[in-house]
Amino acid sequence: MDYSPAVKRLLSKEKVGIGDRVHIEKGKNSFEGIVMPNTGQPDLLVVKLSNGYNIGLETEDIKIKKLPELKKPLPKKFRHEYDKSKKTILILHTGGTVASKIDYETGAVSASVEPEDLLASMPELAKIANIRTEMVFQMYSGDMEPEHWIELAKKVAQEHERFDGIIITHGTDTIHYTTAALSFMLQNIPKPVIFVGSQRSSDRGSSDAAMNMICAAHFIVGGNFKGIALCMHANMNDDDCYIHSGLHVRKMHTSRRDSFRSIDVLPIARVSKTGNIEALYDFRTKGEYKSLPVFNKKVAIVKIHPGFNYKLLEFFEKAGYKGIVLEGTGLGHAPVDVLDKYTRHHALVLSAIKRLAKNSVVAMTSQCLYGKVNMNVYSYGRKLLEAGVVPVQMTPETAYVKLGWVLGHTKNAEAAKNLMQMNLIGEQVERIDPRAFLF
Amino acid sequence: MDYSPAVKRLLSKEKVGIGDRVHIEKGKNSFEGIVMPNTGQPDLLVVKLSNGYNIGLETEDIKIKKLPELKKPLPKKFRHEYDKSKKTILILHTGGTVASKIDYETGAVSASVEPEDLLASMPELAKIANIRTEMVFQMYSGDMEPEHWIELAKKVAQEHERFDGIIITHGTDTIHYTTAALSFMLQNIPKPVIFVGSQRSSDRGSSDAAMNMICAAHFIVGGNFKGIALCMHANMNDDDCYIHSGLHVRKMHTSRRDSFRSIDVLPIARVSKTGNIEALYDFRTKGEYKSLPVFNKKVAIVKIHPGFNYKLLEFFEKAGYKGIVLEGTGLGHAPVDVLDKYTRHHALVLSAIKRLAKNSVVAMTSQCLYGKVNMNVYSYGRKLLEAGVVPVQMTPETAYVKLGWVLGHTKNAEAAKNLMQMNLIGEQVERIDPRAFLF
Repeated sequence: MDYSPAVKRLLSKEKVGIGDRVHIEKGKNSFEGIVMPNTGQPDLLVVKLSNGYNIGLETEDIKIKKLPELKKPLPKKFRHEYDKSKKTILILHTGGTVASKIDYETGAVSASVEPEDLLASMPELAKIANIRTEMVFQMYSGDMEPEHWIELAKKVAQEHERFDGIIITHGTDTIHYTTAALSFMLQNIPKPVIFVGSQRSSDRGSSDAAMNMICAAHFIVGGNFKGIALCMHANMNDDDCYIHSGLHVRKMHTSRRDSFRSIDVLPIARVSKTGNIEALYDFRTKGEYKSLPVFNKKVAIVKIHPGFNYKLLEFFEKAGYKGIVLEGTGLGHAPVDVLDKYTRHHALVLSAIKRLAKNSVVAMTSQCLYGKVNMNVYSYGRKLLEAGVVPVQMTPETAYVKLGWVLGHTKNAEAAKNLMQMNLIGEQVERIDPRAFLF
Repeated sequence: MDYSPAVKRLLSKEKVGIGDRVHIEKGKNSFEGIVMPNTGQPDLLVVKLSNGYNIGLETEDIKIKKLPELKKPLPKKFRHEYDKSKKTILILHTGGTVASKIDYETGAVSASVEPEDLLASMPELAKIANIRTEMVFQMYSGDMEPEHWIELAKKVAQEHERFDGIIITHGTDTIHYTTAALSFMLQNIPKPVIFVGSQRSSDRGSSDAAMNMICAAHFIVGGNFKGIALCMHANMNDDDCYIHSGLHVRKMHTSRRDSFRSIDVLPIARVSKTGNIEALYDFRTKGEYKSLPVFNKKVAIVKIHPGFNYKLLEFFEKAGYKGIVLEGTGLGHAPVDVLDKYTRHHALVLSAIKRLAKNSVVAMTSQCLYGKVNMNVYSYGRKLLEAGVVPVQMTPETAYVKLGWVLGHTKNAEAAKNLMQMNLIGEQVERIDPRAFLF
């Protein structure tokens, strides 16, 4: 969509184009930023401010002046001298904000920073360990598919022996789905594999990527940890990160740098940017390392709500789905009691669940997110259990990943139900830490 | 399902039946509780302990003794003397744990306490105000349908003039959907309407119902509040409740008594059980009172996740749905970029969204739950905006309720999209309080 004639006139008068850096005065306010393309309201001039957020300005009384392009001087190309007294970390890039910059042509943030550039902008990393980097994908995590998890798992399986640890940079939208996927696909991996993301937090102009990377490197070198975890800001200060188990973490805020939270367990550790490591929760996988990168995509997450339509369950049945993760209400409930004229269709919900649970797996989680699923307390929970629903003690996202992974191994629904109820690698929260609620 | 012969033998030897109160010794442990029916593992004897939770016991080395039935002496039938110096509160019961007891025949908790019984067990209420009670429904909130919201709204509309305030007891599973529904259906109602629930918290044997009710009554009498709100435990102590806006609250834990949390705003107030009221957040509806109890059930909540199937959107289109609330990832995203062979179907996701958004409303919320939706930051957000998706600043649950309510007023999709973007009664969070994250 084009800008309105009024906006176009204003821009052409000052020879300002899309992507140009400008100084704007409007009334008592002044701004500096980048001119963006029209985002839907043609008569508002959109400017991306230095904090990454856009404002729309009416053209009335506006003074606009083109500024020279800001060339951020990049440090000299990073030359990495191998230091055999140090550990060696492989950084695998998959894209996301942690390795992104603004594309001034389209106004979008895009994943376009080469691994070397990222390293050059974080020279502290080289003081902690020898660093090798490689680009695996260049994408936002919201676009990631289970096939990418499999490719990434294969890459880590192939590389991990040659390094002391691996850092994976990843967009934050679905990073917790990927950490869960790699936890199942690379169970008991004998090296630390730490995911790192970055939030474009609205509260600060600067990026949080560097500190998250540095804390991850410190944890690999000094944490004595093996397995899949996520390293992100612990709070709004730029001092500490948490290391979260890849199986028990969730993005709980759209923009804050401390948006990732361990659910029902404490984080594994707190790591300061100076390398201090405080252990909080002993989460270690036991058993033999296995690389099992499989996933059956005939799985889905379905949220229960008042007014829920049983025909949605029939859609999944007809579409040949092998597994459904329900996000039930409360302790793990769905509307199944017939009480009055308004609830007559609840009998159809129950029978649709029963039919689905016969030849596929219906796993129950809670949309509360925190706390145990317990379907024995109330009558409708018991009806769901009798219909064959399997309660699981994990986030809906981890349950979804586990279910797709389990169904990648077996097509037998009964075997899959048993596997869903087992605690294979610590994915079932057996003892909730009360301190972890909204920690 | 029956118990195994071994369990049956054990019970019949001591003449113990289902529903009997028993004392059990097993090894070094001893328990008191109620014998429950078999819940799926026939060789485990299930006993409901006094804290409301069930344990399954192997019969080996078990000593069981039948106890006399515990008759809790009920106070004399509550006689209410009208005191004209006091305000008068109407308590409307809808069911749920707050007004429930265990059915020893089925092992389930059931809603069967008469309003008078409840009042008799909370004599403190009569010291705060004159109390009238009425049973509207007798159901768990997980069974509640939008039609029940309409009936309840009509009841409140009809009764509120005669009272100084109304307390509504309600199951906790979907209480936040109902508070949102009544906020839209009874906007600017000139009286305080306070919902109260109760959690069977696993940490304490006692019920939290009484304190929540007492705090709600104190807030009605002394809070100078008008509108729809929810009163629940502020923390794990039995001292304070929070009053949450009916539009910005969510059940965040399956079992804790302090499971309800205000999202992105502070609670309206903290109320102590002694009647101390501390105002925290000024949330008052402005404008004329309107009773608008309508809802269009052709709406649904759909969660986005890696591996999301666009055919699910086609199902809703074919089924004649008028509105979909997406729970997007991150800032409000869905997989719409085609990058490689694994993401080819993303083009179909985008076109399915575009088609749906043409004749119906597709509103975007975030599965993060906290923080603003901002679809201008990344390219895929912008593609979704161009496809006609409407970003909204509220929980997925409130967005769902608002969408059904809006579509109860107009069948015109464009008008409905406009209404979804407006801030009608404070449902859009315009300024996030950073203190409210995981508050």
